[in-house]
Amino acid sequence: MDIFAVPADRQRGWYLSLMAPNTKGPEFAWLDPSRLYCNPQALADCVQDLLGPFQSDAIDLVAGIDAMGFILGASAAGALGKGFLAIRKAGHLCVATQNQNYCDYSGREKTMEVRTDVLKPGLRVLIVDQWIETGGTMRAAIQLVEKQGASVAGVAAVAIENTEGGRWIKDNYRFSHCVPQELQPQVDGKRLDSFQTCKTTN
Amino acid sequence: MDIFAVPADRQRGWYLSLMAPNTKGPEFAWLDPSRLYCNPQALADCVQDLLGPFQSDAIDLVAGIDAMGFILGASAAGALGKGFLAIRKAGHLCVATQNQNYCDYSGREKTMEVRTDVLKPGLRVLIVDQWIETGGTMRAAIQLVEKQGASVAGVAAVAIENTEGGRWIKDNYRFSHCVPQELQPQVDGKRLDSFQTCKTTN
Repeated sequence: MDIFAVPADRQRGWYLSLMAPNTKGPEFAWLDPSRLYCNPQALADCVQDLLGPFQSDAIDLVAGIDAMGFILGASAAGALGKGFLAIRKAGHLCVATQNQNYCDYSGREKTMEVRTDVLKPGLRVLIVDQWIETGGTMRAAIQLVEKQGASVAGVAAVAIENTEGGRWIKDNYRFSHCVPQELQPQVDGKRLDSFQTCKTTN
Repeated sequence: MDIFAVPADRQRGWYLSLMAPNTKGPEFAWLDPSRLYCNPQALADCVQDLLGPFQSDAIDLVAGIDAMGFILGASAAGALGKGFLAIRKAGHLCVATQNQNYCDYSGREKTMEVRTDVLKPGLRVLIVDQWIETGGTMRAAIQLVEKQGASVAGVAAVAIENTEGGRWIKDNYRFSHCVPQELQPQVDGKRLDSFQTCKTTN
């Protein structure tokens, strides 16, 4: 699908077909969702779908996870008129931080950090990432928010896979993602055939 | 200044006082601008100031530089109702990319990449990063955009320092940043004293 095309009907999740499949081999992620952000209507619809379930919820702050969660997170913060907190890969912030170890989707142990001068008890935080596969990264972000006494108002991502970690998030937090029920098996199976994912042209 | 406080007068660049100074030593950046994003009015005013000079310009797409440029870039894209293109550190994208080597502010050689299926001749791109110090990273982003035939509608960052690279950008491209003229010497001198930069409380 042409990157700037918009279908007349805009069925729920239509923009998922703009995502680009891996063309580089098994050491890379199976899919690149970030292509959809280039289409302004796709980005707007994606953000609206992510925020839909939280319309009646009180959210004080949006946190996004380094790096791709910054894009949807900042977009969501703008749409809500809220501030944005960066949850960063460790070693970048020049200020006091709290750290959390985790295993990312590739199984590597990593550390995430968040500044210590913003979160506080009573603050309700929506945490946004691009994609939740094993859930390890999001779980670490949740721990960082909760360790500082703030509460997790919700978790949002383009997709939350039905892995053990993905289900833990769905069972324990309010959440939203953009994958319609009937497409969830294709996301979980990493199957692109009937998902009609975009073929990149270059 | 309290992270969520908003002064009544909101003088141009008021939110710069929310930035946090380095407390970790010389191997880190001298300043962390990202604290200001946590304050919703600061983030909104910052984005409005960045976009002000481009109000009458045609912009088709906003590109943000990995990782902190994603936050302001996505915020700007949302405010303009445009799409967002991620210019990434090399090695992450699972799709065909064009690459560009550069030296970042710390003098290390790095590589940036951008997908090859979005940019095309005629597309006018606003490139956003958090901060422009040596200008090496932004120059590489400009090269990536222009190599694919798209044109740079402008360059925006919280601050553009008056380094050789910063001046090259100011001399050759439309640009915006948030630092009032009278504070520019303090940014260039990395002096925090009269800049009234926030003291972090933790």
